[in-house]
Amino acid sequence: MLQQTIKMTPFITDEELAEKFKVSIQTIRLDRLELSIPELRERIKSVAEKSLEDEVKSLPLDEVIGEIIDLELDEHAISILEIRREHVFSRNQIARGHHLFAQANSLAVAVIDDELALTAKADIRFTRQVKQGERVVAKAKVVKLDKEKGRTVVGVNSYVADEPVFSGEFVMYRSKQS
Amino acid sequence: MLQQTIKMTPFITDEELAEKFKVSIQTIRLDRLELSIPELRERIKSVAEKSLEDEVKSLPLDEVIGEIIDLELDEHAISILEIRREHVFSRNQIARGHHLFAQANSLAVAVIDDELALTAKADIRFTRQVKQGERVVAKAKVVKLDKEKGRTVVGVNSYVADEPVFSGEFVMYRSKQS
Repeated sequence: MLQQTIKMTPFITDEELAEKFKVSIQTIRLDRLELSIPELRERIKSVAEKSLEDEVKSLPLDEVIGEIIDLELDEHAISILEIRREHVFSRNQIARGHHLFAQANSLAVAVIDDELALTAKADIRFTRQVKQGERVVAKAKVVKLDKEKGRTVVGVNSYVADEPVFSGEFVMYRSKQS
Repeated sequence: MLQQTIKMTPFITDEELAEKFKVSIQTIRLDRLELSIPELRERIKSVAEKSLEDEVKSLPLDEVIGEIIDLELDEHAISILEIRREHVFSRNQIARGHHLFAQANSLAVAVIDDELALTAKADIRFTRQVKQGERVVAKAKVVKLDKEKGRTVVGVNSYVADEPVFSGEFVMYRSKQS
């Protein structure tokens, strides 16, 4: 079950696994060692090295909110954002909506295979509160691409472990090509 | 025409007025003096002092993105955000969408007359690019309020001078009251 879970949700933390299986974090660590599953940081690194074949075109990489770990231009992209103190309401440690939006929106920009990418509109949903310390994995997928009209529709779904926390559909402008 | 324009859009800058009337900024300044219309900074201050009778309940004032200059809880609110270098894409000096979203979303939170206000969903449109140095005036209006179900719908329209740049409808959660 541990192997299966990590395969399906590779960016799950040991803490989240411990909670999911109702065991201690120490148990998760020992079981990972036994099964030769590397720790989260190594898993992220290996995914990033393997799959970031394409380069972001539409904006400098350091202007992307979150860390991009997968990118195939005009196809799909994945980024991870760790929710820290500066991302939450001081009163209840719940992540502020605009940070989840910023991660998803900048991923929708980054996935575009064009020097120009601007957001025209978006339809978004916050499906579960995200707390400080949680790690949000955003997955973007280009669902419609009309180069003649210069429009791209990008769907973004964000998760904490395997729970959906945010979803959005972004309509993006790009250069027109005839 | 100058008096009328400033009355309708009190947060317009001298630069924007000069451009609108195709005259120099100096001409606008002299005409303002002659008509005894105070400069923008003074106009903002006087509006803020006059109308901020209500206090933000749902979050600390310094967590609002932009400066709130008008607030009537569960009714309407206005905030101003000056677009600076940290708000724009380095490549083209166009304001990044998530900053306009953050201003609107935090205003939609601030207008709620409740200790708890969280965003459930939003439907947004970016109608014109905003450039560095421009001043965005966001106006929020509570369009639907269901205290029993704990739902509030807030419409936000943002402008630069009199041009619409952003619009959004936010569905907000609040505490349930029976």
